[in-house]
Amino acid sequence: MIRKDVRLKLSEIAARLGLELKGPDREVTGINTLEDAGPGEVSFLANPKYVHLLAGTRAAAVVCDPGHADAVDSALVADNPYLAMARVATLFVEPQGCFTGHSQQAYIHPEAEVDDSAVVHPFVFVGARSRVDAGSRLFPGVYVGEDCVVGRDCILFPNSSLLRRCRLGDRVTLHAGVVVGGDGFGYAPSPEGLFKVPQMGGVVIGNDVEVGASTTIDRGSLGQTVIGDGVKIDNLVQIAHNVHIGDHSVIVAQVGIAGSTSVGRGVMIGGQSAAVGHIHIGDGCKIAARSAVTTDLEPGSNVSGAPAQEHRKNMRVLMSQNRVPDLVRKVRALEAEIASIKASLDDKGEEHG
Amino acid sequence: MIRKDVRLKLSEIAARLGLELKGPDREVTGINTLEDAGPGEVSFLANPKYVHLLAGTRAAAVVCDPGHADAVDSALVADNPYLAMARVATLFVEPQGCFTGHSQQAYIHPEAEVDDSAVVHPFVFVGARSRVDAGSRLFPGVYVGEDCVVGRDCILFPNSSLLRRCRLGDRVTLHAGVVVGGDGFGYAPSPEGLFKVPQMGGVVIGNDVEVGASTTIDRGSLGQTVIGDGVKIDNLVQIAHNVHIGDHSVIVAQVGIAGSTSVGRGVMIGGQSAAVGHIHIGDGCKIAARSAVTTDLEPGSNVSGAPAQEHRKNMRVLMSQNRVPDLVRKVRALEAEIASIKASLDDKGEEHG
Amino acid sequence: MIRKDVRLKLSEIAARLGLELKGPDREVTGINTLEDAGPGEVSFLANPKYVHLLAGTRAAAVVCDPGHADAVDSALVADNPYLAMARVATLFVEPQGCFTGHSQQAYIHPEAEVDDSAVVHPFVFVGARSRVDAGSRLFPGVYVGEDCVVGRDCILFPNSSLLRRCRLGDRVTLHAGVVVGGDGFGYAPSPEGLFKVPQMGGVVIGNDVEVGASTTIDRGSLGQTVIGDGVKIDNLVQIAHNVHIGDHSVIVAQVGIAGSTSVGRGVMIGGQSAAVGHIHIGDGCKIAARSAVTTDLEPGSNVSGAPAQEHRKNMRVLMSQNRVPDLVRKVRALEAEIASIKASLDDKGEEHG
Repeated sequence: MIRKDVRLKLSEIAARLGLELKGPDREVTGINTLEDAGPGEVSFLANPKYVHLLAGTRAAAVVCDPGHADAVDSALVADNPYLAMARVATLFVEPQGCFTGHSQQAYIHPEAEVDDSAVVHPFVFVGARSRVDAGSRLFPGVYVGEDCVVGRDCILFPNSSLLRRCRLGDRVTLHAGVVVGGDGFGYAPSPEGLFKVPQMGGVVIGNDVEVGASTTIDRGSLGQTVIGDGVKIDNLVQIAHNVHIGDHSVIVAQVGIAGSTSVGRGVMIGGQSAAVGHIHIGDGCKIAARSAVTTDLEPGSNVSGAPAQEHRKNMRVLMSQNRVPDLVRKVRALEAEIASIKASLDDKGEEHG
Repeated sequence: MIRKDVRLKLSEIAARLGLELKGPDREVTGINTLEDAGPGEVSFLANPKYVHLLAGTRAAAVVCDPGHADAVDSALVADNPYLAMARVATLFVEPQGCFTGHSQQAYIHPEAEVDDSAVVHPFVFVGARSRVDAGSRLFPGVYVGEDCVVGRDCILFPNSSLLRRCRLGDRVTLHAGVVVGGDGFGYAPSPEGLFKVPQMGGVVIGNDVEVGASTTIDRGSLGQTVIGDGVKIDNLVQIAHNVHIGDHSVIVAQVGIAGSTSVGRGVMIGGQSAAVGHIHIGDGCKIAARSAVTTDLEPGSNVSGAPAQEHRKNMRVLMSQNRVPDLVRKVRALEAEIASIKASLDDKGEEHG
Repeated sequence: MIRKDVRLKLSEIAARLGLELKGPDREVTGINTLEDAGPGEVSFLANPKYVHLLAGTRAAAVVCDPGHADAVDSALVADNPYLAMARVATLFVEPQGCFTGHSQQAYIHPEAEVDDSAVVHPFVFVGARSRVDAGSRLFPGVYVGEDCVVGRDCILFPNSSLLRRCRLGDRVTLHAGVVVGGDGFGYAPSPEGLFKVPQMGGVVIGNDVEVGASTTIDRGSLGQTVIGDGVKIDNLVQIAHNVHIGDHSVIVAQVGIAGSTSVGRGVMIGGQSAAVGHIHIGDGCKIAARSAVTTDLEPGSNVSGAPAQEHRKNMRVLMSQNRVPDLVRKVRALEAEIASIKASLDDKGEEHG
């Protein structure tokens, strides 16, 4: 994933990214961990627990905060070394794919509009009246249904599916196996069994969104399922019909969000969590892994547990659960003691009577 | 998803679906929510919490129960407005897809039988001795292995896979990315590591079944995995080998059902729940979201929790968990009080002694 | 899945697999359960709960342990009948697929090397500089990115994706819809929103690994995600970036393992469990279904619960939870009793005063 043709001087990297170079200037060809970096690679210190590796690293330079710059020969100094590392890495990363142009082995509907600069691999299907904008890349097995929009510089990885009338903004990545626009799960009980409620809405995804492998985002029943700008969704997540996810929210793997729930901006949802349908999760909430949110949450809430409650309270309750066997024993002992006290008092009462 | 060519009079809709029209007759072209419906659209009131929207709706008519018919200008009156709404919607919905016929870019094995009226998109594979019946539609990337049956009027959405010797009834929908007939997960420990138990059975799916995106249904080890008629399965559900799901049961997203478990008819299983293997869940059980069923359930059971137990009991237990920190404190106080009472009694005893 | 052309004498099966034949020799054509086996089929007794079926079986012979050999007419005697059954089954099982050679409807990059004996179905894509070794079979919709290795005798089922620079050992099976090498989920907060950390590593999968349908295994951020030899992973599992799974470990459906966690050899992880990131799970650990592992585990640990703890302790705690409502009531009663004792002592004190 490292481009073989990129050689950069540390001073060039510093200039491009606004970092400060301390120590000798060198030419580098990639980025690696402190342990694995060779003398032609940059490394980084983003987590203090790895400070002890600074002494032994062979890296040409280390991206680090000002406090650690003197511990290494060459440093690229940044206030936020993790972000700086990510930016340095983008200078070396090579985009995936080994195909250009529009493959003759693809199917592009005569009424579709695919920009000449877009890449259409073999076995891609683009449906009627759909539009694929400049710079987007559709990998093999991608399905774009009719009346869809794929914005600029999107990447649709292999076997991802965008069904009818769904729209992606610019710079959206769908990882392999993603399904956008499956039918929502809605049935009306009838005397003849469950009657399918037609799912007539769509999905609207904003700009700079990334959707992890095999995640499913259902279309709205009526109206849209909406994923805001900058949202990052991990693998195997389920987003039900008519859910709204606010801008820049982050959803970790295997989360499920039930129908019509709205999630605010900048919300973080930990892995394997769930939210029931028809609730509102306020801006900036933090939901710990494995939580089950069952009620509206005020903006800025910090919750965990199932059902989810204020995080510190939940921790206190959770920690106390292990004491229940002991409580059972203690309460039994107390009952015996009280019975014995009462008996002795009765005796005394009789004595005194 | 709304057909552009459908215009219907309210009186026609009422006649076709057996509803009563109250108020002026009008021509309508679609269906929408009370808030979003325009003057050419029907809307509906299925949930009493939206009654306040009746006054402001611009809809041409509202599908509602008899009690609300007078609150709007035109009403399509139904005893079950949610079901009636679903039926009205089907009059306007347009089927997905923009392709007809059998694509030259598909692969149909010479020994396969695909009905002329079936739609075979590009990049579909149909294996030897498989049969695809009238009216079924196979979207791009669909794989039908050898010796399979796809009944009439099925829809296999993009990149769904039906592996060897699996059978679908009529009117079955597999959403995108579904896998029917993956191998069950069975290994025999051996001195050389785990030895794969060949998975030689199949999957049999009944009529009118819908399977959500990226759900996986494994083939039987010996014998079949069976999904009954009218079963509705949501996204990302795991159905293990030799599971039987009874007719008209409903399984919400991200549920996992382990091997050889049988689920009765008309069972409802909430999202992210699980059932262990080799148990039987009786007809009509209701299993709340996130439950873990670990034992057989009597028909009609209503359970929740992990391990699942009778729902009201589980709620009582769950609610009580938050009181444990307080109990710890109270028991400590009681112990101190009793110690002090005993000390004072001892003193008194000595006093009296 | 049973080959129609295989007829074997019991004596041949015994000889090939090192089993002892007791009773008359017969010719058989397949394997089935005790209940369903016909007179031309072998059956087996691996679970004592089915002993009662021995009497009624029509099977030509039963694979069983020495203790049950006399209960049937013909027995294939084995110390480990479940393993022996699996071995017998492999004699009859027919490999899936109905296609040979390299399809003209596939795309093989001119710089890819695909062995002549490999099967490349229609709609397979093999990228630049990738290698597919002898005997491997790529089903329709398989994507192999650039710089990949697929070892010998691998099976990549339909619509599975192996992204750039990922490597499979020999005899690896990827079931349908598997994604190997999606990007890890890493973002650095920045003033302009979340900045993607380029995911530059790969995935290395050992020999004899099986990966269940729609499971996702992310590539390393830097360095590799590693799946050891003989590992078996069920459906819909999420393996995050830089996770290491030790040889012969088993991971049941819907488990999620967060980034950089390492799992030892021979570990068993039950369904729907989770492990947080950056921990180490020692060799031979057993993790019950639905556990949430939040700390390092010593080798051989046997844990359950969320957070996971020693299994017996967790069971004791779990069982005690149902007693909390009763404890609440009892503690209230004890408080009343003590108040009344204190009141009576105070009275007595006054009496005596």
